Amino acid sequence: MEVDYSIYLVTDRGLLQGRDLLTAVAEAIEGGVTLIQLREKEVSSREFYQIALKVKELAHSREVPLLINDRLDIALAVDADGLHIGQEDLPLQVARKILGPDKIIGLSVSNLEEAVQGEREGADYLGAGAVYPTTSKDVSEAPIGPDGLKKIKEAVSIPVVGIGGIGLANIEEVKRTGVDGVAVISAIMGAADIKDAARKLADAWRRS
Amino acid sequence: MEVDYSIYLVTDRGLLQGRDLLTAVAEAIEGGVTLIQLREKEVSSREFYQIALKVKELAHSREVPLLINDRLDIALAVDADGLHIGQEDLPLQVARKILGPDKIIGLSVSNLEEAVQGEREGADYLGAGAVYPTTSKDVSEAPIGPDGLKKIKEAVSIPVVGIGGIGLANIEEVKRTGVDGVAVISAIMGAADIKDAARKLADAWRRS
Repeated sequence: MEVDYSIYLVTDRGLLQGRDLLTAVAEAIEGGVTLIQLREKEVSSREFYQIALKVKELAHSREVPLLINDRLDIALAVDADGLHIGQEDLPLQVARKILGPDKIIGLSVSNLEEAVQGEREGADYLGAGAVYPTTSKDVSEAPIGPDGLKKIKEAVSIPVVGIGGIGLANIEEVKRTGVDGVAVISAIMGAADIKDAARKLADAWRRS
Repeated sequence: MEVDYSIYLVTDRGLLQGRDLLTAVAEAIEGGVTLIQLREKEVSSREFYQIALKVKELAHSREVPLLINDRLDIALAVDADGLHIGQEDLPLQVARKILGPDKIIGLSVSNLEEAVQGEREGADYLGAGAVYPTTSKDVSEAPIGPDGLKKIKEAVSIPVVGIGGIGLANIEEVKRTGVDGVAVISAIMGAADIKDAARKLADAWRRS
């Protein structure tokens, strides 16, 4: 599957402050999001499954791939396009064996060693960060900065997206590192106008 | 696979008060536990996977089957003997399609309707309850009592285990309902002497 990693939305319902997730995702896609990762940490498996079914239907109707965060069982259950795992999730090689070679598996990495190991173990892409300070996810390590991101990109041959604190103010700086895209949570999910926020990010990415 | 459902341990590390889970499970097996369900609600996927690998190795060395609570991905990742799902977990038919016909799938039910539907949808056994008031799991409905349990057992032809508030004081009453076993959490995991607690329950089950 050809995947456009450029404007990669990671969902976070906590940032929606009661707004509807499906509406938010639809607006984000209209604005120019090219890839969606559904991340749900606080719901039952049944609810995650039901939400994932709906988001997949929506995303696929707009020809946008859907990845599932962490939960390989949900990815299988809804036949998502793939899985995104972190260092505290199932080991990459275990996930690959279950999902097979055709599904996308992305890996979160925060340093060169994890990046190189992830590529070697068969990750399809890397989410590298946090690039900048972020409040969207619990991050204990210091941000890797654009320089750290550039080093990771140069060390591997698979696609790399930057994640963590990326928004309109720094997206051009991120693009100059040579990465394949930006993973965005709060700059889209936390925006008052989600479609407009996504469009401005997509425009800035294309322009720069 | 022939499964002995009689003394069915559901793990809960919260009840161990710092004691080691593997030691507790080993003691429970020595005492006479015939089946183990590993239940972990508060850990990362990586940790659940690593714990499940160890518990499986231990259980299989004593020829006791291991089921995983809720997380189909963990069940697949460690090639457990099966999965136990509740009404808030993945739908039974979805889980069956992914796990295949050879793995055990058990379903939690709290009334006749769920029981009959579970059997129809292919559950291998039912965990029915709560039979008595319990503090081990969040249970919103009133206990079904031995009478409710008996009605469920009589309505289906697959094995049924009672769960919820079962201990030495009432295990004989539960057995008289005709069920195939008792699922126990706190009466074993919360006991000061886990092996002794399991043995007394196993003895009481066999005697009655």
